Amino acid sequence: MAIDLIEMGQAARKAAFELAQMSTTKKNELLMTMAQALVANTEVIITANQTDLKKAKEMPQNFVDRLTLDEARIKDMANGLKQIANLPDPIGNIDTGWTNQDGLKIVKRRVPLGVVGMIYEARPNVTVDAAGLCFKAGNAVILRGGKEALATNTKLAQVLQDVLQANGVDQNAIQLITETSHHVAEKFMQLNGYLDVLIPRGSARLIQTVVQKATVPVIETGAGNCHIYVDEKADLGMAEKIVVNAKCQRPSVCNAAETLLVHQAVAETFLPQVAQALAKYHVELRGDERTCEILGDAVPASERDWDTEYNDYILTVGVVDTLADAITHINAHNTKHSEAIVTDSYQNGQRFVDEVDASTVYINASTRFTDGFVFGFGAEIGISTQKLHARGPMGLEALTTTKYIVNGNGQIRQ
Amino acid sequence: MAIDLIEMGQAARKAAFELAQMSTTKKNELLMTMAQALVANTEVIITANQTDLKKAKEMPQNFVDRLTLDEARIKDMANGLKQIANLPDPIGNIDTGWTNQDGLKIVKRRVPLGVVGMIYEARPNVTVDAAGLCFKAGNAVILRGGKEALATNTKLAQVLQDVLQANGVDQNAIQLITETSHHVAEKFMQLNGYLDVLIPRGSARLIQTVVQKATVPVIETGAGNCHIYVDEKADLGMAEKIVVNAKCQRPSVCNAAETLLVHQAVAETFLPQVAQALAKYHVELRGDERTCEILGDAVPASERDWDTEYNDYILTVGVVDTLADAITHINAHNTKHSEAIVTDSYQNGQRFVDEVDASTVYINASTRFTDGFVFGFGAEIGISTQKLHARGPMGLEALTTTKYIVNGNGQIRQ
Repeated sequence: MAIDLIEMGQAARKAAFELAQMSTTKKNELLMTMAQALVANTEVIITANQTDLKKAKEMPQNFVDRLTLDEARIKDMANGLKQIANLPDPIGNIDTGWTNQDGLKIVKRRVPLGVVGMIYEARPNVTVDAAGLCFKAGNAVILRGGKEALATNTKLAQVLQDVLQANGVDQNAIQLITETSHHVAEKFMQLNGYLDVLIPRGSARLIQTVVQKATVPVIETGAGNCHIYVDEKADLGMAEKIVVNAKCQRPSVCNAAETLLVHQAVAETFLPQVAQALAKYHVELRGDERTCEILGDAVPASERDWDTEYNDYILTVGVVDTLADAITHINAHNTKHSEAIVTDSYQNGQRFVDEVDASTVYINASTRFTDGFVFGFGAEIGISTQKLHARGPMGLEALTTTKYIVNGNGQIRQ
Repeated sequence: MAIDLIEMGQAARKAAFELAQMSTTKKNELLMTMAQALVANTEVIITANQTDLKKAKEMPQNFVDRLTLDEARIKDMANGLKQIANLPDPIGNIDTGWTNQDGLKIVKRRVPLGVVGMIYEARPNVTVDAAGLCFKAGNAVILRGGKEALATNTKLAQVLQDVLQANGVDQNAIQLITETSHHVAEKFMQLNGYLDVLIPRGSARLIQTVVQKATVPVIETGAGNCHIYVDEKADLGMAEKIVVNAKCQRPSVCNAAETLLVHQAVAETFLPQVAQALAKYHVELRGDERTCEILGDAVPASERDWDTEYNDYILTVGVVDTLADAITHINAHNTKHSEAIVTDSYQNGQRFVDEVDASTVYINASTRFTDGFVFGFGAEIGISTQKLHARGPMGLEALTTTKYIVNGNGQIRQ
């Protein structure tokens, strides 16, 4: 390969050392300058993007749509950086502190992770977004975007690096891997000693590849097979609104619902009602046997449907005998992302949130709220579906770690 | 292979579901009963241990020592379980909570990780210790100990499982892999979907194997190439005591010092002084050029020495021109475990703790204090040297994760 990942890793570590000591004021000023530079370079960014778009003519429309940059989208990316500049800086916060039995004064201080790797698909906005978030949290970042966005990403990274260089900051704080072969991507996933964490963002396939091939620590994100369970004690009007919202408000995202489970006591009333509401959005229903009996026009669900994240106007529907059956089904099929119960029973709601295993569990609200911005973090680097380090929406703090600082006066261990 | 890891994983998940809902009182009662059962079964445990010891005759003395169980050691293990029973239960704690702009009431609740995998060497005490800690934190555990301790571990696990069964608790909460081939170990490291985390405990080689082969999330523990830096502004009497303690109080452990760096302004005074003190413990000194000039009898250090965790009475010694050089050296060679400066300069101390990258950074104290018990956690599952999830000594909380619980009243996303 033409590029040297070890060299990039070493350069990133060096830049990370500088970034870790940088004041919040300086980081914020640089983020604001990056935002201005993006807008000022609108024309050259669009020209680079045209190069990518020409090659992507044969791709599906939604792929091309995500790849396309125009003036408004570049302004959005710039505004994203300004928002990050306005967020509180987690670095230097003290999580906790105490004096131990030896008189040692121990504090647990928030520090940057160091070097963050990002691996993602052909969405150029991730380049700017991830670079900004990592920078604010004092981390160097090495970005590896999809090959179809290479020209665009190269230009975006260059604009950001130019700002760093013009301000006397090590430009290797933000690096882009410009060789997009699978071979280089695999080496990147095994850059132990240089990457403190690797965060994949994109399709379930991309994430699974990273989980399987990476030897550096990974945060799994994004896969969402989310369920809505309508309890026998549900307010069915509320349930209808929540199901329609969770399925149809933005079906392509990970916190959209993919499966509806309905308690048998309300199935005959609720299923026709919700089917009618979903029909307005042309949602295809794939039902179990009892659902198909009640709804004449539902397609029989296959075994696979219960485990599928459609990201589309399709919903798997099942009837369950009990709350316990709903919980068992969800824990067997979900991706530990977001799950909701609609109920007016205190006891059933408590049991659901206690027993369902997921990053976020809702009583009487749409799963669509699992989101760093909605949660008030002001930003989101992804939604973790694993249990280590961070779970659920990840804001700036998920891009930090801690360091124990111990002040003594000559203590030795007995 | 004779054993079915998938089956063990499924059984563990099932047991984890039960454990996650178990009250603190019940968990504590069971831990106390397990402690009693260990003592009551002293004789059969020692018999099993004899089987292992007979096969281990050719092994080095310290290996045999760690493998050997006697009445006192079994009592120690039992007391360890009682101590765990007496610790506060982290499960159910609320880390934080707020109401968002949509009126959603969000709390972040501590929950068990689920299923924890432990992989370790021929130290039977880890079997009981890890089982107890995982149990208290509401996790099922799958243990894979060294093959040389198989008979002992099998008996220990059986004693603990019998307690679970006799009390109507799923005995699969504590499982031992009884087939100790490398092939099975590798499959264990790739048990995605069943293991929420895998924690290796033991030699650097074991840990690196796990890091390289595992596809499940891993917490790296233990490797400690720890440094003491004696600053030009150090109290040299204090520095001598700290160096001797960090090197000699228990050289075999990960928080013992392996390298001494001395500022050139005090090298000629301090090096002979500390060499004399270390000579009482027959510590072999391996020095850089300047150290060897000052200390006639130091062995010249090789390139490799600076990166070696001796776990023995050997110390690499270097002279540095500046604090900055010391920090650069440490960040280049350390394992991110524990690092100490001895100084009376406020400014130098602050710079050291700011710029040295390690789980724990000390001013004027021995590195030997990096320990879950010393830190007041009451227990320790290991010392994390990575940056994700947990860093430094890991107590019960490191065996938990969080879940967002969101209470709404019909909210849908606009």
